[in-house]
Amino acid sequence: MRRFLTPSDIGDLNQALKEAAEVKKNPYAHQHLGKNKTAVLIFFNSSLRTRLSTQKAATNLGMNVIVLDINKDGWQLETETGVIMDGDKPEHIREAVPVIGQYCDIIGVRSFARFENKEEDYSEKILNQFIELSGRPVISMESATRHPLQAFADLVTIEEHRSDKRPKVVLTWAPHPKALPQAVPNSFVEWMKVADVDLTVTHPKGYELAPEFMEGVHVEYDQKKAFEGADFIYAKSWASFSEYGKVLSTDRSWTVNEEKMALTNNAKFMHCLPVRRNMVVTDGVIESPDSIVIQEAANRVVSAQTVLKRMLESL
Amino acid sequence: MRRFLTPSDIGDLNQALKEAAEVKKNPYAHQHLGKNKTAVLIFFNSSLRTRLSTQKAATNLGMNVIVLDINKDGWQLETETGVIMDGDKPEHIREAVPVIGQYCDIIGVRSFARFENKEEDYSEKILNQFIELSGRPVISMESATRHPLQAFADLVTIEEHRSDKRPKVVLTWAPHPKALPQAVPNSFVEWMKVADVDLTVTHPKGYELAPEFMEGVHVEYDQKKAFEGADFIYAKSWASFSEYGKVLSTDRSWTVNEEKMALTNNAKFMHCLPVRRNMVVTDGVIESPDSIVIQEAANRVVSAQTVLKRMLESL
Amino acid sequence: MRRFLTPSDIGDLNQALKEAAEVKKNPYAHQHLGKNKTAVLIFFNSSLRTRLSTQKAATNLGMNVIVLDINKDGWQLETETGVIMDGDKPEHIREAVPVIGQYCDIIGVRSFARFENKEEDYSEKILNQFIELSGRPVISMESATRHPLQAFADLVTIEEHRSDKRPKVVLTWAPHPKALPQAVPNSFVEWMKVADVDLTVTHPKGYELAPEFMEGVHVEYDQKKAFEGADFIYAKSWASFSEYGKVLSTDRSWTVNEEKMALTNNAKFMHCLPVRRNMVVTDGVIESPDSIVIQEAANRVVSAQTVLKRMLESL
Repeated sequence: MRRFLTPSDIGDLNQALKEAAEVKKNPYAHQHLGKNKTAVLIFFNSSLRTRLSTQKAATNLGMNVIVLDINKDGWQLETETGVIMDGDKPEHIREAVPVIGQYCDIIGVRSFARFENKEEDYSEKILNQFIELSGRPVISMESATRHPLQAFADLVTIEEHRSDKRPKVVLTWAPHPKALPQAVPNSFVEWMKVADVDLTVTHPKGYELAPEFMEGVHVEYDQKKAFEGADFIYAKSWASFSEYGKVLSTDRSWTVNEEKMALTNNAKFMHCLPVRRNMVVTDGVIESPDSIVIQEAANRVVSAQTVLKRMLESL
Repeated sequence: MRRFLTPSDIGDLNQALKEAAEVKKNPYAHQHLGKNKTAVLIFFNSSLRTRLSTQKAATNLGMNVIVLDINKDGWQLETETGVIMDGDKPEHIREAVPVIGQYCDIIGVRSFARFENKEEDYSEKILNQFIELSGRPVISMESATRHPLQAFADLVTIEEHRSDKRPKVVLTWAPHPKALPQAVPNSFVEWMKVADVDLTVTHPKGYELAPEFMEGVHVEYDQKKAFEGADFIYAKSWASFSEYGKVLSTDRSWTVNEEKMALTNNAKFMHCLPVRRNMVVTDGVIESPDSIVIQEAANRVVSAQTVLKRMLESL
Repeated sequence: MRRFLTPSDIGDLNQALKEAAEVKKNPYAHQHLGKNKTAVLIFFNSSLRTRLSTQKAATNLGMNVIVLDINKDGWQLETETGVIMDGDKPEHIREAVPVIGQYCDIIGVRSFARFENKEEDYSEKILNQFIELSGRPVISMESATRHPLQAFADLVTIEEHRSDKRPKVVLTWAPHPKALPQAVPNSFVEWMKVADVDLTVTHPKGYELAPEFMEGVHVEYDQKKAFEGADFIYAKSWASFSEYGKVLSTDRSWTVNEEKMALTNNAKFMHCLPVRRNMVVTDGVIESPDSIVIQEAANRVVSAQTVLKRMLESL
């Protein structure tokens, strides 16, 4: 396994879920794999859950971990060739990335969408240069358009809380004061499409996700209708794709509340966190017994560890 | 042991001192306790000694350590419920803290008094929310009103340097250009009160510590009189409690110097460091053979390791 | 081995090169040496390669590593005695350094030239205070006037790529928009002088390095003439020593390009990185098969590990 960005990178999902369950049950069973292996985790954007969970996962596997917190302004990498580098950028990505590769066995990269240029964000330029140039397996710890460790953890969590019946899973947009990347909803859709679930996406007009993710996905613009009979409600805010990076609405009639949850089939409430209470979801819903956001966060260790284990096995 | 904030959390002090001596003698004897256990050390305020010594202590015990340096302005947590979170605070403490608990076995928290609100500081709001919400044992690595790892290290140091006779220990206020928290003197008083020592506190009028700490403690406003016959001089600056957070004096007649030390019973000089030379103490006193500030700092590993060992044993 | 600053600290170079080759071949063979030993790596200046490679080297040896990133403005240490510390500096170096020594077995320090005071920089004041006061072996991870881990790695790299004949090694100044320290060229000269190579240094007038480094070294002001018959071209920019810290020229006629490399004996191209492309060296040269900059960077682990191993053996 040389990269982890999409569900196809992890192959058969049922097998991956089985492996994840084993990893969760026996987290220290594979420490021989990571012995004398080093993961470098590079954060162009700051992180709480992702850093802690990925570091924990690597340590569980016996790896050494080196965390690089890179202030985006502090380490400007030149990415074009032919440029006379007499400005602010002290280093070219074609040196920086191969060098990092010399000091480790696996690289994790977090680099968010910048909302400056849709094509650049959606080409996953930064992550792909790490994949191309580092000579090491590369994990996205949330890249410009995807957050696969989150989506895999979400799937693990749904698997743990579902009944035998194929569950109805609803991804609902929610209001937020800031423009947030589409990485989490993109990956959620990408993973749920190939998982054994029925996916419905609901959001106000103008918040359609990128067509490459949404092909074949059921969209229901009426949030209440979308919630009917749902087994899992997954709330998330994101900025507009068509009017790229814009906040078109902060309409709190989209906030997930008790009244809407009552329309569901006793649905579990999920969110990747951090969450703005009473914008995205009410205090009542997130503190209810049906809220599984903490368990979902805990499963970030499980998804990261399963992926790292696969990469270690293929070194 | 689920929390470490006051001397009562560690139980019988003589037993704790015996254990500390054993930990110091054989620092690597308990690495089985920490195997596959993770400590997350959260610094809302920066640190040199506390970070290094606590990390060393945890590593001596075989633990994995994850350090989180959190810029206080960069991770504003909402602490009230019912708030519509549409402002600067991206996360509620009721999600953040339980999530951190999912990724570790023991949590250390450093969060200083802010001097904005005496009641809030003295309620130990931040630390108590970690204790209440994290589901993990929590160590104060200096909280708003206490610095128990320092006080326990101080006691270990006094134990190492005392004679058979019950020692006279003097805590003296000293001048400093900045308003410093009362955490160190509060804890020092709290620990010395229950230790086998005679405690005297000396400071200018207006620098009285909080009554909850000072009940039954001998205060001597004449510094020279206080120093007479002392076996240990513990210097520290702090801001006023009554005029909360104010610097009332920078009077260098309170600086600890050779002349005053001559009044003592060849007292050892102690300070938690960092120390402003020639404000708090003269070069001559801190560089004299009776200065034990470096040994005192070294014992920060011992106090942290004894506490972490107790917590690991009770997991 | 108590300090690592100059080649004389490592003794016989042939022996050191042999040891480095063994370390590279069997990087995990000496983990017993580092067991329960802690390295504290202190960065007054930020770092990518040095931090990653030194941390990797220490971990390969079984050590625990604690990294301290110290914002130069954030931890101002008083270095004079007799000063009344009522200003910005919260701690005296005579407390800070011995305390750090209490928490570790080996200390690494990175502290660049400040270009404020030539005498202060060239006295290696900061590094020498760590050596004097810490009580621990100290490694320069680039100090004011030297970067010995780089120079040792450079020598290892030359040794790997040389033929039997004594190689001609050329250090060439190159243009750069910023004033860079002389640490790398100083150490390169210092090491090559005592290695089994013929060294030529080429630079524009005014860029002469400090006399204490250049005694007996061949300087050729005509860059093309210097390149003739060279086996290794080592490019680096530095600020003027005589007009201390000034950029006297950014003349791109000094950029290393294909035309100049054609004058050499199929020379390998070396640079310590990061490198400004098309200022210091053209895209074509640095991406050519004769560019060994990535291998050179990889050898930073080897030089650091050889030095750390020596220090561990002498504890």
